[in-house]
Amino acid sequence: SGGRLPTVPLTPLTVPAQQAEDRARAFYEIMSRRRTVRDFDSRPIPESVLEWAVRTAATAPSGAHVQPWRFVVLTDPGRKRRLRLAAEAEEREFYTRRASDEWLAALAPLGTDEHKPFLETAPAVIVVFEVQKGPGTPRPYYTKESVGIAVGFLLATLHQAGLATLTHTPSPMRFLNEVCERPPEERGAYVIPVGYPAPAARVPDLRRKPLEEVMIRL
Amino acid sequence: SGGRLPTVPLTPLTVPAQQAEDRARAFYEIMSRRRTVRDFDSRPIPESVLEWAVRTAATAPSGAHVQPWRFVVLTDPGRKRRLRLAAEAEEREFYTRRASDEWLAALAPLGTDEHKPFLETAPAVIVVFEVQKGPGTPRPYYTKESVGIAVGFLLATLHQAGLATLTHTPSPMRFLNEVCERPPEERGAYVIPVGYPAPAARVPDLRRKPLEEVMIRL
Ligand SMILES: N[C@@H](Cc1ccc(O)c(I)c1)C(=O)O
Ligand SMILES: N[C@@H](Cc1ccc(O)c(I)c1)C(=O)O
Repeated sequence: SGGRLPTVPLTPLTVPAQQAEDRARAFYEIMSRRRTVRDFDSRPIPESVLEWAVRTAATAPSGAHVQPWRFVVLTDPGRKRRLRLAAEAEEREFYTRRASDEWLAALAPLGTDEHKPFLETAPAVIVVFEVQKGPGTPRPYYTKESVGIAVGFLLATLHQAGLATLTHTPSPMRFLNEVCERPPEERGAYVIPVGYPAPAARVPDLRRKPLEEVMIRL
Repeated sequence: SGGRLPTVPLTPLTVPAQQAEDRARAFYEIMSRRRTVRDFDSRPIPESVLEWAVRTAATAPSGAHVQPWRFVVLTDPGRKRRLRLAAEAEEREFYTRRASDEWLAALAPLGTDEHKPFLETAPAVIVVFEVQKGPGTPRPYYTKESVGIAVGFLLATLHQAGLATLTHTPSPMRFLNEVCERPPEERGAYVIPVGYPAPAARVPDLRRKPLEEVMIRL
């Protein structure tokens, strides 16, 4: 119809002012312990967590409330293997040809390369698609912003449940349509292995920018 | 130098498997009560929450760990007024000229228009900038993905502290550089009023897609 929706009263989460800071700080303390992990254990994860994480992601705001996201959860070993092989073929191209020297230099501190065993080792891989306009799907607005926020909610849920993630962005991602059986109006944007970290997992000794570098008060 | 960083052992958050689902579900229950709010109360907010929210946002993963974000927190009434006036000028153009009929039809259910009083009423407005390559700033990768995830973390923190937000995307956003005194390599991407909702705040009676529409298992 195109008319204005009816409205309903907002029923806000009510947090007493003196608890607001504690809650925000407590969430920060948990979230600040998240690290991107590339070395996963193969032990199984509580699978219901994947569903709660997707449910939470799908509460994200989106341009014109189009909700332009699709979350494909791969747990089948054969499917993960196909994903790995296809991703490694793209990554080989990336590391040997497509990446600029500037880009390779930016990645050198992380020690990444074309080998992606985590796509098989991790018990689950969530592939996130941005849904473009297509037959049966409306035109989305601010698609990358909307899906980015949803992925933030997804990562926050998984981390709080004790699961490690890697926010992986193979590129170009067209092979994801085939591996995940998605139509062309869906565009793979993130590949997120999920699992427990390997017991001996190590991470690069990265530093985060201090608050003064990221926040400005006016 | 460009060399590989030293690594350190990962010290994961350890969550017993039987608590993982409860934690994920509890976070979902809280997050599912978030709604985008356009009607703010002017009463002050615990300002420290803004800082914890930005700290949390800045824990987001980013392409090549470039951390290509800047969060400008406006609380000064004069500054918020300038922001409102500049935003309303752009929005007037949008609603009367720039938006396609298709876009206006997509927005009609929400009842939005060119009036943006919330940019003054809300006690704080967080303007999020994507930092492009510039003199003194490195080239970022997957900038929109990285900043989107960071905004997800920001919104999750504010919501848990009982604060309402509007994820607003005025466009084009060049006026944000002037109002926020940011250099040209920074690109305004989100304008997020933050505050308590007005007591009588209402929201459109939107529905979120059910899980089966957003999640596929393979
Ligand atoms: N920027 C305009 C229009 C608008 C509004 C809501 C929305 O989800 C989208 I996409 C666009 C405004 O803020 O009114
Ligand atoms: N996609 C490649 C390269 C890569 C890796 C990390 C990173 O932050 C960025 I930007 C790119 C890979 O996954 O190895």
